[in-house]
Amino acid sequence: MQGIFISFEGIDGVGKTTQVERLRAYVEAQGRECVVTREPGGTVLGVAIRKLLLGGVEGSDVDIAPRAEALLFAADRAQHVAEVIRPALERGAVVITDRYLDSSLAYQAGGRELTADEIRNLSMWATNGLLPNRTYLLDLDPVQSHARLQHDEDRMESAGNDFQRRTRQAFLDLAKAESQRFRVIDASQSIEEVWAHIQSDFAGIDQLEAAQ
Amino acid sequence: MQGIFISFEGIDGVGKTTQVERLRAYVEAQGRECVVTREPGGTVLGVAIRKLLLGGVEGSDVDIAPRAEALLFAADRAQHVAEVIRPALERGAVVITDRYLDSSLAYQAGGRELTADEIRNLSMWATNGLLPNRTYLLDLDPVQSHARLQHDEDRMESAGNDFQRRTRQAFLDLAKAESQRFRVIDASQSIEEVWAHIQSDFAGIDQLEAAQ
Repeated sequence: MQGIFISFEGIDGVGKTTQVERLRAYVEAQGRECVVTREPGGTVLGVAIRKLLLGGVEGSDVDIAPRAEALLFAADRAQHVAEVIRPALERGAVVITDRYLDSSLAYQAGGRELTADEIRNLSMWATNGLLPNRTYLLDLDPVQSHARLQHDEDRMESAGNDFQRRTRQAFLDLAKAESQRFRVIDASQSIEEVWAHIQSDFAGIDQLEAAQ
Repeated sequence: MQGIFISFEGIDGVGKTTQVERLRAYVEAQGRECVVTREPGGTVLGVAIRKLLLGGVEGSDVDIAPRAEALLFAADRAQHVAEVIRPALERGAVVITDRYLDSSLAYQAGGRELTADEIRNLSMWATNGLLPNRTYLLDLDPVQSHARLQHDEDRMESAGNDFQRRTRQAFLDLAKAESQRFRVIDASQSIEEVWAHIQSDFAGIDQLEAAQ
């Protein structure tokens, strides 16, 4: 596979979308193909699966069992990799995804009956072992990310609570366990400062790639 | 878990539905709760997943990737076990399912890029390791099962071909590998003869259960 696969992770409101667009512009300015995608819902099948997960099944109030839920997330990811990510990487593109494996680990593995290892194994099977070349974790105190999301009533209510703090910590623990793949970036900095870190790191990956 | 879990397996047209109903009547005549179910589609979520698998996603002609397909089947099974099968077994019921794990192995594992071991591991995780106490494999030459399905145009075309023969053989191989769980029954016999075998065997399981 010749392309470069980048994921952005972090809780809501840390500025992932802005930095994804910066990186896209940077890659495209070099005349290179850039595919920007997201999870969940990066494919038509994924959107349909997402509907099942969020809205349940029409006309019923089914509780989706934890294992069924994890398998549906994994099915979404399997399709996303097979239909979008792998073909783009094989064409030599830079693929940037807004959330990937680590979001499943940070969000699904906390407080459920399933372990992080189980979720990870499922996901590794779903993707046939495809991990990003680099994962940028935008890290921010939930109180600050909350402030950035003030326009969003739903998120306001849940921001700054225990769940957000646990999820932030879960991301940091993942980054620590895989320090080669992750770069943790302090997202309390300005957009320009965050971008400077990403640009400098990405240039390094790109050179490494070119040297191979 | 106090109940008894029975699955019926075999290619289409071998008479599973008839024997499932015989066993249900027998169990209920003893004043015992009997839950009859089926895969795929034993739950509302399962029916929705089944629609994705069969019809694809509305307004699109998506090819579902093999791993995504296997994960969707496993999600269906996970929900089926969590919502229907386990609660019934915990109430002490006899649960009879028309197809289960072995159908996935016999149908999905042939000719795809996935191995039977992969499908089996996925399914064992989905069900948290729940296997039937007994599996009745109704075995019949596809040419004969084909004759029983003559009313069904779709199936007529595919009956008696290589696929049906390979699937039959896959079921027989599974039965050989797990001879304690399986009973292979010659489905070319009359309905009464087939039922006599099942009744006699089931009475043995029931007594074993009572003795525990």
